[in-house]
Amino acid sequence: MIDQIELKNVKITGGYFYEKQQMNENVTIPAVYKRFYDTGRVDAFKLKWRNGEPNRPHIFWDSDVAKWIEGAAYSLIHKRDENLENLIDSIVADIETGQTPDGYFNSYYQTVEYANRFTVRDNHELYCAGHLMEGAVAYHKATGKRNFLDAMCRYADHIADVFTAPDRDKNFTTPGHEEIELALVKLYKETNEKKYLELSKFFVDTRGTINLGTQRQDHLPLREQTTAEGHSVRCLYLFAGAADIAREYGDEHLKKACEAVFENVVNKRMYVTGGIGANFAGESFSYDYDLPNELAYAETCASIAMVYFCQRMYLLTGEKKYMDVIELQIYNSVLSGISLYGDRFFYCNPLEVHPERRDNYSSDRRAQFAPEYERPDYFNCSCCPPNLVRFIASLGQYMYHVDSDKIYVNLYNSSEFNYNGVKITQETDYPRDGKINFKVSTNKPINILFRKPDWRKGYSFDNATLPFTSDDNGYINITIRHGGDYQFILDLEMPVVELYANPQIHYCAGRAAIKRGPIVYCAEGIDNGTNLKSVVICKDADYQCEQSEINGNEIVKITCAAEFMRETADELYSTTPFKTESGRLTLIPYTAWANRGKTEMNVWLLK
Amino acid sequence: MIDQIELKNVKITGGYFYEKQQMNENVTIPAVYKRFYDTGRVDAFKLKWRNGEPNRPHIFWDSDVAKWIEGAAYSLIHKRDENLENLIDSIVADIETGQTPDGYFNSYYQTVEYANRFTVRDNHELYCAGHLMEGAVAYHKATGKRNFLDAMCRYADHIADVFTAPDRDKNFTTPGHEEIELALVKLYKETNEKKYLELSKFFVDTRGTINLGTQRQDHLPLREQTTAEGHSVRCLYLFAGAADIAREYGDEHLKKACEAVFENVVNKRMYVTGGIGANFAGESFSYDYDLPNELAYAETCASIAMVYFCQRMYLLTGEKKYMDVIELQIYNSVLSGISLYGDRFFYCNPLEVHPERRDNYSSDRRAQFAPEYERPDYFNCSCCPPNLVRFIASLGQYMYHVDSDKIYVNLYNSSEFNYNGVKITQETDYPRDGKINFKVSTNKPINILFRKPDWRKGYSFDNATLPFTSDDNGYINITIRHGGDYQFILDLEMPVVELYANPQIHYCAGRAAIKRGPIVYCAEGIDNGTNLKSVVICKDADYQCEQSEINGNEIVKITCAAEFMRETADELYSTTPFKTESGRLTLIPYTAWANRGKTEMNVWLLK
Repeated sequence: MIDQIELKNVKITGGYFYEKQQMNENVTIPAVYKRFYDTGRVDAFKLKWRNGEPNRPHIFWDSDVAKWIEGAAYSLIHKRDENLENLIDSIVADIETGQTPDGYFNSYYQTVEYANRFTVRDNHELYCAGHLMEGAVAYHKATGKRNFLDAMCRYADHIADVFTAPDRDKNFTTPGHEEIELALVKLYKETNEKKYLELSKFFVDTRGTINLGTQRQDHLPLREQTTAEGHSVRCLYLFAGAADIAREYGDEHLKKACEAVFENVVNKRMYVTGGIGANFAGESFSYDYDLPNELAYAETCASIAMVYFCQRMYLLTGEKKYMDVIELQIYNSVLSGISLYGDRFFYCNPLEVHPERRDNYSSDRRAQFAPEYERPDYFNCSCCPPNLVRFIASLGQYMYHVDSDKIYVNLYNSSEFNYNGVKITQETDYPRDGKINFKVSTNKPINILFRKPDWRKGYSFDNATLPFTSDDNGYINITIRHGGDYQFILDLEMPVVELYANPQIHYCAGRAAIKRGPIVYCAEGIDNGTNLKSVVICKDADYQCEQSEINGNEIVKITCAAEFMRETADELYSTTPFKTESGRLTLIPYTAWANRGKTEMNVWLLK
Repeated sequence: MIDQIELKNVKITGGYFYEKQQMNENVTIPAVYKRFYDTGRVDAFKLKWRNGEPNRPHIFWDSDVAKWIEGAAYSLIHKRDENLENLIDSIVADIETGQTPDGYFNSYYQTVEYANRFTVRDNHELYCAGHLMEGAVAYHKATGKRNFLDAMCRYADHIADVFTAPDRDKNFTTPGHEEIELALVKLYKETNEKKYLELSKFFVDTRGTINLGTQRQDHLPLREQTTAEGHSVRCLYLFAGAADIAREYGDEHLKKACEAVFENVVNKRMYVTGGIGANFAGESFSYDYDLPNELAYAETCASIAMVYFCQRMYLLTGEKKYMDVIELQIYNSVLSGISLYGDRFFYCNPLEVHPERRDNYSSDRRAQFAPEYERPDYFNCSCCPPNLVRFIASLGQYMYHVDSDKIYVNLYNSSEFNYNGVKITQETDYPRDGKINFKVSTNKPINILFRKPDWRKGYSFDNATLPFTSDDNGYINITIRHGGDYQFILDLEMPVVELYANPQIHYCAGRAAIKRGPIVYCAEGIDNGTNLKSVVICKDADYQCEQSEINGNEIVKITCAAEFMRETADELYSTTPFKTESGRLTLIPYTAWANRGKTEMNVWLLK
């Protein structure tokens, strides 16, 4: 069975992921901490807030800080940082001080309405608990310190006591905002205490038995679900936990439901960027093929949740397609959530933006339906920024997976992987370039499987002396029969391709999206002028790639032949087509948009 | 100076307008009365409602009934109907009974909050008064009975006393919802009492002097306005009144502002159907070129208000372009507001509808932003149905205009026109056919000017013996030098044309709208299957017209060659275009949409 590796087994050494991790360590981790400190989220852990004071704790604040701790902890694995460790230790000390004798900790309930703990199902109480557990597991892995982990075990024990009690009100037998299910599995794996796995299974089994509707993921028992419904982050965190349970218990029913939900998302309800959850109302999945570009919700956290779900599906099934989706998410809809400098964030990730529209809309319409065109530095509901912190810090975790005699190389980035006597080194500028230099040192025979990305046109290996199978379920399988040192180059062709949308996606009719390698491109007004929606890519598009940069970040820019409608005409409608002008259209990676001020943006272009 | 004719001078005798007037008399007038009776609007005039009872009067109810009276009165001009007259007399009697000694009448204020009359500027108090005046003028014209007119003169006198009093609070010196301005001009014309014209001018002059914002049409004095802002019905009713004032007082400043607002609407802010007011928020004009098709507001009343404004601009300037816009409005966005049977109504007139989207949206999003896909038989805010009643009953009023030695034929429909010794008879199936048979009997020399519609490709006159000037400011000018009987045929070519949208209208990029004569066409799912947004009209479209019908209503159907995307594909995105299928696309007049059940609709098609 395919297994995850520990983050310590992979060190990212250069290239794209390295740039992001450097940004995370130098800018994002301190910036998010500062915001959380300034808004009272950090001090809330001291439980000293009293009625009438500013910065009243909010029901989801603990989760914000917990995600930040988790991300900061991951960053400590390869680079100790005493100051950062002290910041975390101080919060952990507050938790230990504040935790009640029965193990409970929640900065909102303990200061605002203690009497109501574990009574309001829709609140984020167990979501906060789960995130604290994830933070504790990460911090234990990073530092070996047990106190945070032990505190969270006490909390988990308490939760088990409360929720599995036979007289528990059946209307609140499952958590509100999902997440604790996957967190308990992590706690189980870190402590080897099976009771945490069992509690997770209890939550997964109980969900959907009282018919509270899709937003609460309670419209059907999980094993009967076939579509992704309701709040997209809740849904995917829950199914990530469910995939864990299916794997741990060999539960075929649950596995089938997880597979169905995945297929529904990727074949009916996912943006070309990987964006998840089209519908503003309830931050939810819309119905099949309803993927509006301008009014896209596509929350950054939903794409991160999709990665969590996909990795667990990969561990459950071993099927490569899950890793393809992870790659799509990372290089597009996850990293579009953060500015290139690292201190500003998108909650929503629309595929089309017209700043003039947003500026002209009345505030009610704007707030609800027109997307932001510039990343703010803070949201009141601040789930996405710390989610990006922990996600970027843990990128290494998605690169390699292992089985008894196999190593799967799933993502390509300069890195060193060390595991059980096998060392794999990658040197590459992927995804800006498709060429990857591999060095392998092994003390034993091993199969190394290289993922063939689903976007690839072709690939080549330059070392013909290596035996390889070209079609091992989507992997290139290299069998190394003897210990020793090996070198070879994998070269993935990266032509520019046009993607067409299923005709049932009405919003993309007549249009194409441009992709190179795993990167989806977009056009911005700052490069191309206004009225991007009217620009037509020529039949003979003559795509050209060139190295470029935005705000010091290296990108591959694409240009192509296009017809622009630049002349302003007096009339609104005409029986003769309006005049066009030939020119070159500039496209940049979707993740790089909105880094140069207020400007139009469009992914789907007339073709 | 060009002048209006009285409705009694024109009798519609057949064809399209006749069908609509028959429907209005037989179905719409009784149906709207019944709804108003059932909801308590009629009995409200008895002022007997008391706190706690059902059917509490609403601030705009009087206007609903008044518009119905106005429409019913117009229908009486050419066909007396004792029952209908009795219904109106009974309401008028209630008004006379209920009117206070000082002349005030309002069924809401007099029963719900009498103490607050004339204190809440945003309410529809003077709007109701104005509509009652319009009803009274119409009823006087139709029956010669003076009592309703006299009652409304007393009310107008009272309003003048209150609002022009020197100590009047300057925050409520102008009406809330506009309309009384144009109503007072009508009252002046019917009574020849100049004080009503002066009161109208007072309201027009005072508007915009206290800066209450665009929604209250109070962002700028009218003479300084250059764009159409705020609530579209309010704006256009107000500017209709302003155009009256500009004409009556020869006010060049005001005329220029009216012209600027008109130009802004037709060149920047009007749908291809004539739809007015794109923005749901505040039922308002959006900014230039922001004309979303699916989320169009385009209220039926706003198109009717546009006709009122345009006719007054025509009277003010004599320029033909205003009549072109009136024709566009009538045949498209006005009559799309009523079902072909005549008993169901659209408030909003979107250019693109996906019933599945509406059904799947959460109720908050649906209610605010996704258009209705079937006409309901009633709205709580029921301004549009009685507005259609009075508009359809008064269609004759837009057909002919007169000057000292000229008669302008502005709209084409089978009709008899009698005025000052000149009789003009039209026989035609316009707009289904472009051929119009004219007979003229005159006892004196006369110039008859026939409007050349702005959509025309060519025209011909079959009587070469008639001298005519082909380019008299957009009219064909026939000079008849001697009294006598004349016959001739005007034949307007009606090819199918494709209209392209200004590239700044992003929503229409890559698309065309199909028009024949004054009629804008649309495609419905019931004829063409789903995914209309993906259907591509072929380069060689091969447009064919054929006589057809929908629910017994004669229409000209258009078919053309198109590529359909009918196959359902498994994948969401593909590097190869999805498979298309050649076929014929069926198009029907936009006004005929949504008469055959729940189905997709689209005006702008890929081309």
